[in-house]
Amino acid sequence: MRLDTRHPRQIRADIRGGRLTGITAGLGQNYVQANLAILPRAQAYDFLLFCQRNPRACPLIEVCDAGSPEPVGVAPGADLRTDLPRYRIHEHGVVTAEVTDIRSYWRDDLVAFLLGCSFTFEWALLDAGVRLWHVEEGKGVAMWRTSIACRPAGIFNGPMVVSMRPIRAVDVAKAVTVSARYPGAHGAPIHVGDPAALGIDDITQPHYGEAQFFAPGDIPVFWACGVTPQAVALAAKPPLMITHSPGHMFITDLPNASLAAW
Amino acid sequence: MRLDTRHPRQIRADIRGGRLTGITAGLGQNYVQANLAILPRAQAYDFLLFCQRNPRACPLIEVCDAGSPEPVGVAPGADLRTDLPRYRIHEHGVVTAEVTDIRSYWRDDLVAFLLGCSFTFEWALLDAGVRLWHVEEGKGVAMWRTSIACRPAGIFNGPMVVSMRPIRAVDVAKAVTVSARYPGAHGAPIHVGDPAALGIDDITQPHYGEAQFFAPGDIPVFWACGVTPQAVALAAKPPLMITHSPGHMFITDLPNASLAAW
Repeated sequence: MRLDTRHPRQIRADIRGGRLTGITAGLGQNYVQANLAILPRAQAYDFLLFCQRNPRACPLIEVCDAGSPEPVGVAPGADLRTDLPRYRIHEHGVVTAEVTDIRSYWRDDLVAFLLGCSFTFEWALLDAGVRLWHVEEGKGVAMWRTSIACRPAGIFNGPMVVSMRPIRAVDVAKAVTVSARYPGAHGAPIHVGDPAALGIDDITQPHYGEAQFFAPGDIPVFWACGVTPQAVALAAKPPLMITHSPGHMFITDLPNASLAAW
Repeated sequence: MRLDTRHPRQIRADIRGGRLTGITAGLGQNYVQANLAILPRAQAYDFLLFCQRNPRACPLIEVCDAGSPEPVGVAPGADLRTDLPRYRIHEHGVVTAEVTDIRSYWRDDLVAFLLGCSFTFEWALLDAGVRLWHVEEGKGVAMWRTSIACRPAGIFNGPMVVSMRPIRAVDVAKAVTVSARYPGAHGAPIHVGDPAALGIDDITQPHYGEAQFFAPGDIPVFWACGVTPQAVALAAKPPLMITHSPGHMFITDLPNASLAAW
């Protein structure tokens, strides 16, 4: 994997200038990357409430003021309209455009939400010596819609999506305690060991992402996934929703370690 | 202190029926007690955002649907209009009535917020063997407005209020780790040891509550306080805000231990 260890400010400047256009994995090594969701103010209260009620799946790390594209809490000076490599425009729940700049879509009533992502706890797991096969193999994780209902909020309602990583049995406890320190990045696992308890019939057939390699004795460990809020929001068919394109995240100025719970 | 070890459902029924009218300290032993703040939907987005941006001072444990007085997440079947012993009605930031039932004030656009309170982490501290002089003496804690600015949200803006407990030096580390497990009840201390760093000139003169006894060598330990959101909200002079009267809290069905972070 390509690594870019410059400060996120410099990397975002290259993204803004069109010099970096791909996925953000490996960029801004050790800095928090975030999922982006932008909604009109008319839908923002329900979405904020949905995140408050479902913090494991929707760990908010920033909510901008209506009309402001600057995430002053996590990356002062950044512009969320230009500083991600790629965006998806969704109208009434359908992707209508994929663009590299959303200034022409911006409005005074738009609210930008940034949500923590699994990169942060994966970094913590690797740092603690927990092996992650998909990282070693350069693959994506496996994800499923589950039988766990999110707590609804206004127009938003739907199932929790989880990601699954096979963990060596000897490392399961460590994987729990290490990821639990990062509630801003989905926190501890939602479930350990029994796919059927989540309504998952076939652990070899993910709904999203890639099937995972299991070494003998590995335990499937499930974390709440940031796909949840996006899937739930789009199912409500809001008139406009803008998100990052998959893998093309926002790189904040927060070191991963700073997201640890006090 | 009077103790009532019945289930909160039974205690709330007595409160609803007018048979319990005083403060709630000692009632529903080991169950989470909560601060109540009720605002019109027109101010609710800003308040929800304020809480999201200031989680140490404003640990939300429930936000009801607009118009619903039932906190389905923490006490299904309860009615927030009748199940607290005493309420304050604030109009444009001024107390205009103190009542034992708010059904006549209720409207379809009101949103009820419940916030965790220090009772939960004090229970955890005592359980862990950390001595709290004010509990042993049957006194209130000491509180100050500090020089720490909360992060503003819309109309809401103001200083963080903290509570202070003198802790034996040998117990300070334990007090930090034990309270940190309860982010839903203000979590770890905001500050340990230096009142001046918070803009507190005189540790013997609290802005609210009572001055505290210090044993030789005790360290002043400061936690974010639930007075913060109420003070900030009232400073914005919303047309209507309903709160519990001081000490007359809402008793949830959540055991204190259930509020521990995963």
